Amino acid sequence: MSESERYLVSRRTVHVGWGDCDAAQIVYYPNYFRWMDQGTGELFERVGLSHKAIREINGVGIPLVDAHASFRISSSFGDDLQLDSTVVEWGRTSFKVSHRFYESKGVLAAEGTEVRVWAVPHPDNPFRVGTAPIPREIIERFLLR
Amino acid sequence: MSESERYLVSRRTVHVGWGDCDAAQIVYYPNYFRWMDQGTGELFERVGLSHKAIREINGVGIPLVDAHASFRISSSFGDDLQLDSTVVEWGRTSFKVSHRFYESKGVLAAEGTEVRVWAVPHPDNPFRVGTAPIPREIIERFLLR
Amino acid sequence: MSESERYLVSRRTVHVGWGDCDAAQIVYYPNYFRWMDQGTGELFERVGLSHKAIREINGVGIPLVDAHASFRISSSFGDDLQLDSTVVEWGRTSFKVSHRFYESKGVLAAEGTEVRVWAVPHPDNPFRVGTAPIPREIIERFLLR
Amino acid sequence: MSESERYLVSRRTVHVGWGDCDAAQIVYYPNYFRWMDQGTGELFERVGLSHKAIREINGVGIPLVDAHASFRISSSFGDDLQLDSTVVEWGRTSFKVSHRFYESKGVLAAEGTEVRVWAVPHPDNPFRVGTAPIPREIIERFLLR
Repeated sequence: MSESERYLVSRRTVHVGWGDCDAAQIVYYPNYFRWMDQGTGELFERVGLSHKAIREINGVGIPLVDAHASFRISSSFGDDLQLDSTVVEWGRTSFKVSHRFYESKGVLAAEGTEVRVWAVPHPDNPFRVGTAPIPREIIERFLLR
Repeated sequence: MSESERYLVSRRTVHVGWGDCDAAQIVYYPNYFRWMDQGTGELFERVGLSHKAIREINGVGIPLVDAHASFRISSSFGDDLQLDSTVVEWGRTSFKVSHRFYESKGVLAAEGTEVRVWAVPHPDNPFRVGTAPIPREIIERFLLR
Repeated sequence: MSESERYLVSRRTVHVGWGDCDAAQIVYYPNYFRWMDQGTGELFERVGLSHKAIREINGVGIPLVDAHASFRISSSFGDDLQLDSTVVEWGRTSFKVSHRFYESKGVLAAEGTEVRVWAVPHPDNPFRVGTAPIPREIIERFLLR
Repeated sequence: MSESERYLVSRRTVHVGWGDCDAAQIVYYPNYFRWMDQGTGELFERVGLSHKAIREINGVGIPLVDAHASFRISSSFGDDLQLDSTVVEWGRTSFKVSHRFYESKGVLAAEGTEVRVWAVPHPDNPFRVGTAPIPREIIERFLLR
């Protein structure tokens, strides 16, 4: 894949709710991963790939194999975070999504990555899934020209 | 159903976690419903009716149609609550589960009910479910004699 | 309070996420209560009463004492629900918020109520809260004239 | 710190609930982070350091600055996972907790790490926190001799 390829960025506002915070009055950290998962969902929806659409194509979806986040500035209820989600790496059967949370002044508050696979039904075992090469047609939907 | 019938009570300890509390340092209330759902799950597991087993019998499960809770004493992280769950009413196609949360001194802290149905696949619409009479054999599993 | 008083309705869209659904591919029910709590939060924000603002006024907030919901039509990931939240009853120290979830065709999918109190610090016990009369000025913020 | 030091491992069973799974009938991944947070909580409780106790000592707690997990085998409702949590690295002001999830046959299903800091009130800004050297007395509570 050429270095010069650029991919769609999905931007959404995350309104930090009362129930998203823990007893220290800051976001309970697993919620960042929930928002990251939602960010990936919205990114794919923007190119016509809702969960339902993906499952119609590959029969399974895009399950996660790795997730990471680091936290710089804590946020609290009432805060609005801007979340930018984009695919930063397309592999043969897997891809990496980057997620960046900015607080109101535009300062990076947290960032994370998800590695997901293009999954297909397992050839032998109905309780497992396999992976398959990501169709070029899927990647092209995200390409900015 | 005879007034004198008594049903199994499932008792479990709910350890209130840091992340179960909101910014007021007390349990974020939707978590009580999560615990109630888990209480029903464990009650049914105790008579051999895991979610998987139920779905093998009726094809769907025991979806909820109504939920209620009232809160008397707030709890916080580190607290252990005792949760007693039991079916208090068996209808023809639905049943009511009672859930009582006791704090460490045995005082009732919160209580709630769930009304669930014995669901079956909808005869016409694959996206809906129907209800069916609860098999007497299911009810008898909960009977204390 | 006069029968003819009408109160502000806060309307928001709830986008049902992948992670909001359970293994039956429908919304895991405690999430409706999370959305109801958020609906109340947004309703109060709309009249200038963020959680932070409320806590500055009464020192505590508006904790819940009772919650109820009934479910008519299940929803799944990708669905958009319209949630209408409004106070339907102002008592002396408590108030009832109504929440109605409509699916895309405008059919009522679920509805619920929350009873909350106007809380103040407990006079004697720092670990408990008391209630106080709701200031008329608070109620008037919601009045539609 | 000597290479030969070994630290307490906290082992708990995570019962995968119906509501912990997503529409693909496998665990919704942010829940692994919730369980990791609970694993750290229980590990510290086992040496007398509940959240409340920690806050009495340093005034703040042990907030997270980094979290990572990788997923090998998916789990579903009804499964019991064994979670082993232990500190694998003590830094000057931060420490790393390792979490390993084993499925019933003892196979590693998922693993993750959390990096947390020993936090103290910020000297100047009440809305931020600072870090401080981890007291040796804290570390020694985890030492296996």
